[in-house]
Amino acid sequence: MLNISLVNELNYEDFISRFGNVVEHCSICAAAIWRNRPFRDVRHLHQEICSFLDLLPDTGKEGVLRLHPDLAGRLAELGSLTQESTAEQKAAGLDTMTPGEKQLLRETNIKYREKFGFPFVICARQNKKEAILKGIVERLEHSAAEELNIGIEEVKKICLLRLLSIVIDDKSHM
Amino acid sequence: MLNISLVNELNYEDFISRFGNVVEHCSICAAAIWRNRPFRDVRHLHQEICSFLDLLPDTGKEGVLRLHPDLAGRLAELGSLTQESTAEQKAAGLDTMTPGEKQLLRETNIKYREKFGFPFVICARQNKKEAILKGIVERLEHSAAEELNIGIEEVKKICLLRLLSIVIDDKSHM
Repeated sequence: MLNISLVNELNYEDFISRFGNVVEHCSICAAAIWRNRPFRDVRHLHQEICSFLDLLPDTGKEGVLRLHPDLAGRLAELGSLTQESTAEQKAAGLDTMTPGEKQLLRETNIKYREKFGFPFVICARQNKKEAILKGIVERLEHSAAEELNIGIEEVKKICLLRLLSIVIDDKSHM
Repeated sequence: MLNISLVNELNYEDFISRFGNVVEHCSICAAAIWRNRPFRDVRHLHQEICSFLDLLPDTGKEGVLRLHPDLAGRLAELGSLTQESTAEQKAAGLDTMTPGEKQLLRETNIKYREKFGFPFVICARQNKKEAILKGIVERLEHSAAEELNIGIEEVKKICLLRLLSIVIDDKSHM
Protein backbone atom coordinates (compact mmCIF):
# COMPACT_ATOMS: atom_id res chain seq x y z
CA MET A 1 0.00 0.00 0.00
CA LEU A 2 1.19 3.49 -0.88
CA ASN A 3 0.42 6.73 0.86
CA ILE A 4 -0.50 9.65 -1.36
CA SER A 5 2.95 11.28 -1.07
CA LEU A 6 4.54 8.17 -2.53
CA VAL A 7 1.93 8.12 -5.31
CA ASN A 8 2.83 11.70 -6.19
CA GLU A 9 6.53 10.79 -6.32
CA LEU A 10 6.08 7.91 -8.78
CA ASN A 11 7.53 8.43 -12.24
CA TYR A 12 5.15 7.96 -15.15
CA GLU A 13 6.09 4.36 -15.92
CA ASP A 14 5.63 3.27 -12.31
CA PHE A 15 2.38 5.23 -12.08
CA ILE A 16 0.94 3.42 -15.12
CA SER A 17 2.22 0.10 -13.93
CA ARG A 18 0.39 0.59 -10.58
CA PHE A 19 -2.76 2.36 -11.77
CA GLY A 20 -3.10 1.29 -15.43
CA ASN A 21 -5.85 -1.21 -14.64
CA VAL A 22 -7.96 0.70 -12.09
CA VAL A 23 -10.38 0.88 -15.00
CA GLU A 24 -10.32 -2.58 -16.58
CA HIS A 25 -7.98 -2.80 -19.62
CA CYS A 26 -8.24 0.96 -19.99
CA SER A 27 -4.89 2.50 -19.10
CA ILE A 28 -5.78 5.72 -20.93
CA CYS A 29 -7.70 6.69 -17.77
CA ALA A 30 -4.56 6.70 -15.63
CA ALA A 31 -2.50 8.17 -18.50
CA ALA A 32 -5.01 11.00 -18.93
CA ILE A 33 -4.96 12.13 -15.30
CA TRP A 34 -1.17 11.99 -14.91
CA ARG A 35 -0.99 15.76 -15.48
CA ASN A 36 -3.28 16.41 -12.49
CA ARG A 37 -0.64 15.47 -9.92
CA PRO A 38 -0.11 16.14 -7.08
CA PHE A 39 -3.21 14.35 -5.83
CA ARG A 40 -4.48 15.44 -2.40
CA ASP A 41 -5.63 11.93 -1.51
CA VAL A 42 -7.04 8.76 -3.02
CA ARG A 43 -10.49 10.37 -3.34
CA HIS A 44 -8.99 13.14 -5.43
CA LEU A 45 -7.32 10.57 -7.69
CA HIS A 46 -10.68 8.84 -8.03
CA GLN A 47 -12.48 12.10 -8.76
CA GLU A 48 -10.08 12.90 -11.61
CA ILE A 49 -10.72 9.50 -13.20
CA CYS A 50 -14.49 9.97 -12.82
CA SER A 51 -14.28 13.39 -14.47
CA PHE A 52 -12.30 11.91 -17.34
CA LEU A 53 -14.87 9.13 -17.81
CA ASP A 54 -17.67 11.70 -17.81
CA LEU A 55 -15.90 13.70 -20.55
CA LEU A 56 -15.66 10.73 -22.90
CA PRO A 57 -18.01 10.72 -25.87
CA ASP A 58 -20.73 8.03 -25.68
CA THR A 59 -18.75 5.79 -28.05
CA GLY A 60 -15.84 6.00 -25.62
CA LYS A 61 -18.06 5.16 -22.64
CA GLU A 62 -19.35 2.15 -24.57
CA GLY A 63 -15.73 1.23 -25.29
CA VAL A 64 -14.91 1.37 -21.57
CA LEU A 65 -17.77 -1.05 -20.85
CA ARG A 66 -16.75 -3.36 -23.72
CA LEU A 67 -13.27 -3.72 -22.23
CA HIS A 68 -14.89 -5.46 -19.23
CA PRO A 69 -15.25 -9.26 -19.22
CA ASP A 70 -18.59 -11.04 -18.89
CA LEU A 71 -19.27 -12.01 -15.27
CA ALA A 72 -18.53 -15.72 -14.89
CA GLY A 73 -17.99 -15.82 -18.64
CA ARG A 74 -15.57 -17.57 -20.91
CA LEU A 75 -12.51 -15.70 -19.62
CA ALA A 76 -13.32 -16.69 -16.03
CA GLU A 77 -13.63 -20.31 -17.10
CA LEU A 78 -10.31 -20.14 -18.90
CA GLY A 79 -8.64 -18.45 -15.92
CA SER A 80 -7.78 -15.55 -18.24
CA LEU A 81 -9.29 -12.68 -16.25
CA THR A 82 -7.11 -9.88 -14.94
CA GLN A 83 -5.96 -10.39 -11.35
CA GLU A 84 -8.37 -7.65 -10.23
CA SER A 85 -11.41 -9.20 -11.95
CA THR A 86 -10.63 -12.66 -10.62
CA ALA A 87 -10.60 -11.39 -7.03
CA GLU A 88 -13.76 -9.32 -7.53
CA GLN A 89 -15.79 -12.12 -9.09
CA LYS A 90 -14.66 -14.46 -6.32
CA ALA A 91 -15.64 -11.92 -3.62
CA ALA A 92 -19.16 -11.87 -5.08
CA GLY A 93 -19.35 -15.65 -4.81
CA LEU A 94 -19.57 -16.10 -8.56
CA ASP A 95 -17.20 -19.06 -8.27
CA THR A 96 -19.77 -20.86 -6.11
CA MET A 97 -22.77 -20.58 -8.44
CA THR A 98 -24.89 -23.65 -9.04
CA PRO A 99 -25.08 -24.97 -12.63
CA GLY A 100 -28.57 -23.42 -12.88
CA GLU A 101 -27.33 -20.00 -11.73
CA LYS A 102 -24.42 -20.21 -14.13
CA GLN A 103 -26.74 -20.95 -17.02
CA LEU A 104 -29.10 -18.10 -16.09
CA LEU A 105 -26.19 -15.65 -15.89
CA ARG A 106 -24.72 -16.86 -19.17
CA GLU A 107 -28.02 -16.59 -21.05
CA THR A 108 -28.87 -13.20 -19.58
CA ASN A 109 -25.36 -11.92 -20.37
CA ILE A 110 -25.92 -12.85 -24.00
CA LYS A 111 -29.32 -11.12 -24.13
CA TYR A 112 -27.89 -8.05 -22.45
CA ARG A 113 -24.98 -7.80 -24.88
CA GLU A 114 -27.30 -8.32 -27.85
CA LYS A 115 -29.70 -5.62 -26.71
CA PHE A 116 -27.16 -2.96 -25.71
CA GLY A 117 -24.00 -3.77 -27.68
CA PHE A 118 -21.86 -3.83 -24.53
CA PRO A 119 -21.54 -6.21 -21.57
CA PHE A 120 -23.34 -6.03 -18.22
CA VAL A 121 -21.01 -4.29 -15.76
CA ILE A 122 -21.64 -4.28 -12.01
CA CYS A 123 -19.39 -3.70 -9.02
CA ALA A 124 -19.11 -7.34 -7.97
CA ARG A 125 -17.44 -6.54 -4.64
CA GLN A 126 -20.55 -4.62 -3.54
CA ASN A 127 -22.99 -7.33 -4.62
CA LYS A 128 -23.43 -10.99 -3.85
CA LYS A 129 -24.31 -13.45 -6.60
CA GLU A 130 -28.04 -13.28 -5.81
CA ALA A 131 -28.05 -9.48 -6.19
CA ILE A 132 -26.06 -9.74 -9.42
CA LEU A 133 -28.48 -12.26 -10.94
CA LYS A 134 -31.43 -10.10 -9.89
CA GLY A 135 -29.67 -6.96 -11.16
CA ILE A 136 -28.94 -8.22 -14.64
CA VAL A 137 -32.53 -9.40 -15.16
CA GLU A 138 -33.89 -6.02 -14.04
CA ARG A 139 -31.39 -3.93 -15.96
CA LEU A 140 -32.20 -5.81 -19.16
CA GLU A 141 -35.48 -3.82 -19.17
CA HIS A 142 -33.71 -0.44 -19.31
CA SER A 143 -32.94 1.68 -22.36
CA ALA A 144 -29.42 1.71 -23.83
CA ALA A 145 -28.86 5.29 -22.65
CA GLU A 146 -29.83 4.34 -19.08
CA GLU A 147 -27.55 1.31 -19.12
CA LEU A 148 -24.63 3.33 -20.50
CA ASN A 149 -24.92 5.66 -17.50
CA ILE A 150 -25.48 2.89 -14.97
CA GLY A 151 -22.58 0.88 -16.38
CA ILE A 152 -20.18 3.84 -16.14
CA GLU A 153 -21.28 4.53 -12.56
CA GLU A 154 -20.49 0.89 -11.74
CA VAL A 155 -17.07 1.31 -13.40
CA LYS A 156 -16.44 4.26 -11.06
CA LYS A 157 -17.32 2.14 -8.00
CA ILE A 158 -15.05 -0.68 -9.18
CA CYS A 159 -12.31 1.90 -9.78
CA LEU A 160 -12.60 3.34 -6.26
CA LEU A 161 -12.27 -0.11 -4.68
CA ARG A 162 -9.27 -0.89 -6.87
CA LEU A 163 -7.68 2.45 -5.89
CA LEU A 164 -8.33 1.70 -2.21
CA SER A 165 -6.44 -1.56 -2.60
CA ILE A 166 -3.37 0.42 -3.78
CA VAL A 167 -3.46 3.73 -1.89
CA ILE A 168 -3.97 4.25 1.86
CA ASP A 169 -7.20 6.17 2.49
CA ASP A 170 -5.76 8.72 4.88
CA LYS A 171 -8.75 10.75 5.96
CA SER A 172 -6.55 13.21 7.89
CA HIS A 173 -5.61 14.76 4.54
CA MET A 174 -9.22 15.70 3.79
CA MET B 1 -4.28 -10.51 -43.96
CA LEU B 2 -8.05 -10.15 -43.72
CA ASN B 3 -10.41 -8.70 -46.27
CA ILE B 4 -13.06 -6.33 -44.98
CA SER B 5 -15.84 -8.95 -45.10
CA LEU B 6 -13.87 -11.14 -42.73
CA VAL B 7 -13.25 -8.15 -40.46
CA ASN B 8 -16.97 -7.50 -40.32
CA GLU B 9 -17.62 -11.14 -39.39
CA LEU B 10 -15.23 -11.17 -36.44
CA ASN B 11 -16.80 -11.50 -33.01
CA TYR B 12 -15.90 -8.81 -30.49
CA GLU B 13 -13.12 -10.76 -28.76
CA ASP B 14 -11.40 -11.56 -32.03
CA PHE B 15 -11.86 -7.97 -33.22
CA ILE B 16 -10.14 -6.59 -30.10
CA SER B 17 -7.45 -9.20 -30.28
CA ARG B 18 -6.64 -8.16 -33.89
CA PHE B 19 -7.19 -4.39 -33.65
CA GLY B 20 -6.67 -3.62 -29.95
CA ASN B 21 -3.20 -2.19 -30.55
CA VAL B 22 -3.69 -0.20 -33.78
CA VAL B 23 -3.37 2.73 -31.40
CA GLU B 24 -0.52 1.83 -29.06
CA HIS B 25 -1.69 0.34 -25.73
CA CYS B 26 -5.06 2.00 -26.28
CA SER B 27 -7.63 -0.69 -26.99
CA ILE B 28 -10.49 1.67 -26.11
CA CYS B 29 -10.12 3.01 -29.68
CA ALA B 30 -11.02 -0.33 -31.25
CA ALA B 31 -13.61 -1.01 -28.52
CA ALA B 32 -15.28 2.36 -29.15
CA ILE B 33 -15.73 1.85 -32.91
CA TRP B 34 -17.05 -1.72 -32.65
CA ARG B 35 -20.62 -0.42 -32.94
CA ASN B 36 -19.84 1.17 -36.34
CA ARG B 37 -19.62 -2.17 -38.18
CA PRO B 38 -19.99 -3.05 -40.97
CA PHE B 39 -16.96 -1.16 -42.24
CA ARG B 40 -16.90 -0.44 -45.97
CA ASP B 41 -13.13 -0.83 -46.20
CA VAL B 42 -9.95 -0.31 -44.22
CA ARG B 43 -10.09 3.46 -44.84
CA HIS B 44 -13.54 3.55 -43.23
CA LEU B 45 -12.21 1.68 -40.21
CA HIS B 46 -9.37 4.20 -40.00
CA GLN B 47 -11.75 7.14 -40.35
CA GLU B 48 -13.84 5.91 -37.42
CA ILE B 49 -10.77 5.67 -35.21
CA CYS B 50 -9.64 9.16 -36.28
CA SER B 51 -13.09 10.56 -35.45
CA PHE B 52 -12.96 8.90 -32.05
CA LEU B 53 -9.51 10.37 -31.34
CA ASP B 54 -10.75 13.82 -32.38
CA LEU B 55 -13.69 13.56 -29.95
CA LEU B 56 -11.46 12.84 -26.95
CA PRO B 57 -10.99 15.66 -24.47
CA ASP B 58 -7.46 17.12 -24.44
CA THR B 59 -6.58 15.11 -21.34
CA GLY B 60 -7.53 11.98 -23.28
CA LYS B 61 -5.42 13.00 -26.27
CA GLU B 62 -2.49 13.56 -23.91
CA GLY B 63 -3.20 10.13 -22.44
CA VAL B 64 -3.06 8.56 -25.91
CA LEU B 65 0.37 10.12 -26.49
CA ARG B 66 1.60 9.06 -23.04
CA LEU B 67 0.80 5.44 -23.84
CA HIS B 68 3.49 5.58 -26.56
CA PRO B 69 7.08 4.57 -25.76
CA ASP B 70 10.05 6.88 -26.19
CA LEU B 71 11.76 6.30 -29.53
CA ALA B 72 14.89 4.25 -28.93
CA GLY B 73 14.19 4.60 -25.21
CA ARG B 74 14.48 2.31 -22.24
CA LEU B 75 11.78 -0.10 -23.42
CA ALA B 76 13.55 -0.57 -26.75
CA GLU B 77 16.79 -1.31 -24.92
CA LEU B 78 15.05 -3.83 -22.71
CA GLY B 79 13.33 -5.44 -25.72
CA SER B 80 9.99 -4.67 -24.04
CA LEU B 81 8.31 -2.74 -26.85
CA THR B 82 5.11 -4.02 -28.43
CA GLN B 83 5.69 -6.09 -31.57
CA GLU B 84 4.35 -3.21 -33.68
CA SER B 85 6.66 -0.59 -32.14
CA THR B 86 9.70 -2.84 -32.48
CA ALA B 87 9.09 -3.26 -36.23
CA GLU B 88 8.40 0.46 -36.72
CA GLN B 89 11.47 1.66 -34.89
CA LYS B 90 13.57 -0.82 -36.84
CA ALA B 91 12.09 0.33 -40.16
CA ALA B 92 13.18 3.87 -39.32
CA GLY B 93 16.73 2.67 -38.75
CA LEU B 94 16.64 3.56 -35.06
CA ASP B 95 18.41 0.31 -34.29
CA THR B 96 21.41 1.51 -36.33
CA MET B 97 21.97 4.86 -34.63
CA THR B 98 25.48 5.85 -33.67
CA PRO B 99 26.18 6.40 -29.96
CA GLY B 100 26.12 10.16 -30.64
CA GLU B 101 22.72 9.99 -32.34
CA LYS B 102 21.38 7.83 -29.52
CA GLN B 103 22.52 10.34 -26.94
CA LEU B 104 21.00 13.27 -28.87
CA LEU B 105 17.67 11.45 -29.18
CA ARG B 106 17.67 10.46 -25.52
CA GLU B 107 18.45 13.98 -24.32
CA THR B 108 15.93 15.61 -26.63
CA ASN B 109 13.25 13.06 -25.62
CA ILE B 110 13.75 14.08 -22.00
CA LYS B 111 13.53 17.80 -22.83
CA TYR B 112 10.43 17.20 -24.93
CA ARG B 113 8.69 15.22 -22.20
CA GLU B 114 9.62 17.83 -19.58
CA LYS B 115 8.30 20.68 -21.69
CA PHE B 116 5.04 19.08 -22.87
CA GLY B 117 4.21 16.41 -20.29
CA PHE B 118 3.92 13.71 -22.95
CA PRO B 119 6.42 11.89 -25.19
CA PHE B 120 7.49 12.81 -28.72
CA VAL B 121 5.39 10.73 -31.14
CA ILE B 122 6.21 10.42 -34.83
CA CYS B 123 5.26 7.90 -37.49
CA ALA B 124 8.61 6.11 -37.59
CA ARG B 125 7.76 4.11 -40.71
CA GLN B 126 7.41 7.33 -42.70
CA ASN B 127 10.65 8.84 -41.42
CA LYS B 128 14.25 7.78 -41.38
CA LYS B 129 16.36 8.35 -38.31
CA GLU B 130 17.82 11.61 -39.69
CA ALA B 131 14.32 13.05 -40.22
CA ILE B 132 13.28 11.91 -36.75
CA LEU B 133 16.28 13.56 -35.09
CA LYS B 134 15.66 16.77 -37.06
CA GLY B 135 11.92 16.56 -36.28
CA ILE B 136 12.23 16.27 -32.54
CA VAL B 137 14.63 19.23 -32.34
CA GLU B 138 12.27 21.39 -34.41
CA ARG B 139 9.08 20.30 -32.66
CA LEU B 140 10.61 21.11 -29.28
CA GLU B 141 10.10 24.80 -30.25
CA HIS B 142 6.32 24.43 -30.62
CA SER B 143 3.60 25.18 -28.07
CA ALA B 144 1.97 22.35 -26.10
CA ALA B 145 -1.30 22.82 -28.00
CA GLU B 146 0.50 22.54 -31.35
CA GLU B 147 2.34 19.41 -30.25
CA LEU B 148 -0.83 17.81 -28.93
CA ASN B 149 -2.38 18.19 -32.39
CA ILE B 150 0.74 17.13 -34.28
CA GLY B 151 1.21 14.11 -32.00
CA ILE B 152 -2.37 12.93 -32.53
CA GLU B 153 -2.01 13.34 -36.31
CA GLU B 154 1.11 11.13 -36.11
CA VAL B 155 -0.87 8.58 -34.07
CA LYS B 156 -3.41 8.49 -36.92
CA LYS B 157 -0.68 7.84 -39.50
CA ILE B 158 0.80 5.05 -37.35
CA CYS B 159 -2.70 3.62 -36.94
CA LEU B 160 -3.35 3.57 -40.72
CA LEU B 161 -0.11 1.69 -41.37
CA ARG B 162 -0.92 -0.81 -38.61
CA LEU B 163 -4.42 -1.30 -40.08
CA LEU B 164 -2.91 -1.82 -43.55
CA SER B 165 -0.76 -4.60 -42.11
CA ILE B 166 -3.93 -6.40 -40.96
CA VAL B 167 -6.60 -5.60 -43.57
CA ILE B 168 -6.31 -5.84 -47.37
CA ASP B 169 -6.68 -2.37 -48.94
CA ASP B 170 -9.21 -3.36 -51.59
CA LYS B 171 -9.71 -0.17 -53.59
CA SER B 172 -12.49 -1.79 -55.70
CA HIS B 173 -14.79 -1.33 -52.69
CA MET B 174 -14.40 2.44 -52.78
